[in-house]
Amino acid sequence: MKDRVRRIFRLLKSPVDAIVVANSTEPHVDMTFAYATGVESGLFEGSVAVLTPNGGTTIITGALEAESARSAPDAEVIEIDSMDSLRKSLGKSLRGRKSVGLNYRELTHATYLFLKKTLPDHRFSDVSPTIATARTVKDKEEIARLREAAHITSKVAREIPGMLRSGMTELELASEVEYHMGRLGSAGPSFKTIVAFGPHGAEPHFEPTRTKLKKGMTMVIDYGAIYQRYCSDCTRSFAFGHPPKQARAIHEVVEAAQQAAFEVIRPGVSGADVHKAAEQVINASKWKGRFIHGLGHSIGLAVHDGGVGLSPRSKEKLEVGMCLTVEPGIYVPGFGGVRIEDDIVVTKDGYEMLTDAPRGYLEVKG
Amino acid sequence: MKDRVRRIFRLLKSPVDAIVVANSTEPHVDMTFAYATGVESGLFEGSVAVLTPNGGTTIITGALEAESARSAPDAEVIEIDSMDSLRKSLGKSLRGRKSVGLNYRELTHATYLFLKKTLPDHRFSDVSPTIATARTVKDKEEIARLREAAHITSKVAREIPGMLRSGMTELELASEVEYHMGRLGSAGPSFKTIVAFGPHGAEPHFEPTRTKLKKGMTMVIDYGAIYQRYCSDCTRSFAFGHPPKQARAIHEVVEAAQQAAFEVIRPGVSGADVHKAAEQVINASKWKGRFIHGLGHSIGLAVHDGGVGLSPRSKEKLEVGMCLTVEPGIYVPGFGGVRIEDDIVVTKDGYEMLTDAPRGYLEVKG
Repeated sequence: MKDRVRRIFRLLKSPVDAIVVANSTEPHVDMTFAYATGVESGLFEGSVAVLTPNGGTTIITGALEAESARSAPDAEVIEIDSMDSLRKSLGKSLRGRKSVGLNYRELTHATYLFLKKTLPDHRFSDVSPTIATARTVKDKEEIARLREAAHITSKVAREIPGMLRSGMTELELASEVEYHMGRLGSAGPSFKTIVAFGPHGAEPHFEPTRTKLKKGMTMVIDYGAIYQRYCSDCTRSFAFGHPPKQARAIHEVVEAAQQAAFEVIRPGVSGADVHKAAEQVINASKWKGRFIHGLGHSIGLAVHDGGVGLSPRSKEKLEVGMCLTVEPGIYVPGFGGVRIEDDIVVTKDGYEMLTDAPRGYLEVKG
Repeated sequence: MKDRVRRIFRLLKSPVDAIVVANSTEPHVDMTFAYATGVESGLFEGSVAVLTPNGGTTIITGALEAESARSAPDAEVIEIDSMDSLRKSLGKSLRGRKSVGLNYRELTHATYLFLKKTLPDHRFSDVSPTIATARTVKDKEEIARLREAAHITSKVAREIPGMLRSGMTELELASEVEYHMGRLGSAGPSFKTIVAFGPHGAEPHFEPTRTKLKKGMTMVIDYGAIYQRYCSDCTRSFAFGHPPKQARAIHEVVEAAQQAAFEVIRPGVSGADVHKAAEQVINASKWKGRFIHGLGHSIGLAVHDGGVGLSPRSKEKLEVGMCLTVEPGIYVPGFGGVRIEDDIVVTKDGYEMLTDAPRGYLEVKG
């Protein structure tokens, strides 16, 4: 992916002679590897990509994934069979390239020490802010894949009300949601599906259990698809039967908060300002202080794609091509929660929705 | 989880005053966090656990997951609301504890630098080998969860032949497999399900596509369940209709290779010797050199759980309580592949199967 590699080098404030992306064992795999090389398949544990300013890419990997590595459109593949041959190939690929950029945010400290020992005469520096910036602004191909991933979750959002049955467990609903995504072309959930019935909804990252759905419960369902390595992320909150009266009122405040955020999204606005727009709506309601996380995060090859976010600490300005979630929520311990989450892409004039499912309050008949 | 924390400190060759487990953003989350604290739910990005020799555990986390943190059986929870309060809480928790162990293998280099800056007067050292050792030998509770996870995959293995339909895509089959796991209580696939039809089977880590199943194809299906955070990993290779003659012959060699491995597994044997036992069988066949990866890996909270493995480089000796995959394979570019994978636990007398599904050659009627 010459264009992507060249762009990373162009964005660097302090130039380097090469960038090394070094994977450890799952889950400590740097998605920058797939971004820069364009490999369509493969995990590439313990593998290394060496990138150079003119767009050159060398993949150093074992026999296990050499076949997958050859799917990269313009990378040279070096097949290694031992740590010793890894060290030699690294030395060779970096000959005459003394200053080497590393992605400190996605590199384990152990791998850093390995590189330091293997390349004692090279100078390392941190290029992770630049890599995050490059990966945050998506190119056309990436937006097309994110749109398809979001499209899959949108279709499933419409199907969820029909899946609900009295007595089904959180785990069963989670697997139905994932199954429907898979049938529509998702290569797997982009993260562990959250299904939280009733009071469980007060924990934003709740993991589904064997708790059964009963009439009068609210629920939060947070799930995502993967399409050609790109992730979507969607949350819908439904009521089953007739829940306590406050369920509708909470949902309406969250809807209004999300709408307030949409209205300020455009290039040049800071992520913190978008967060604030939503937070103000919630804090002006009787659920003041019940919005306990950032409003959104970048999506891409990872579902938490790093770089720019929409949180009180996000000083970075939005740019055309950034793809983000917008997900306000209200969490009430003992009662439950409501979260609404959609994916958007920042455009010249504001934003475009990637998710396109209805967001309004819905009481599903029990 | 006082027992687990105390055990980590007991296994240390050079004692430290405290161990800090520090998570970055997903996927760079250290599963040691869940292992040591016993939290049943939650992701804990950007959160920190401070462990002390007497089994003390402090979780430092934001409002997002403070509720989940309180599910930890015996941890003190400190709720923070900024990087500044994280720094202060860290300093306070580590007062008088100057030597601090870190898990270098699962800590990003960026987080290492953050800790270095936050705690300039503390001495850091690498405790990752000890953590890997501790996590590799499972306790009773862990084995029970791994057994249930493997049980789910075994049930699904019996169901796969019934799922096959001419014209279905790899993605559809993957989603059916995941759905069946979910219905049986899996909290999600433990890794991205691999379904590889025909020649795709030659790539061990192939990602499913829209390729359709045709009569005469072989296939490799590699998938895993998660039960209460613990992962299973299972591979079955089937033929659909009547595939080329060599399909059966390859399958029989892989079966024999796996059996040879089982026969040498017992405490005191090295992982390399187990690998060799399987490899010799394959290299004595006409598919010499077509087994292109390690024979197995540790399973636990992560599907690639680190520590001991079964590869040519695994010098560590097996111990009672280690849980591993045994997964020989033969890969023939242009034709496809066969892999058989089962999970086992090392026992006093040898091993016990965790997976309990049939492994023999099967031609499913097309």
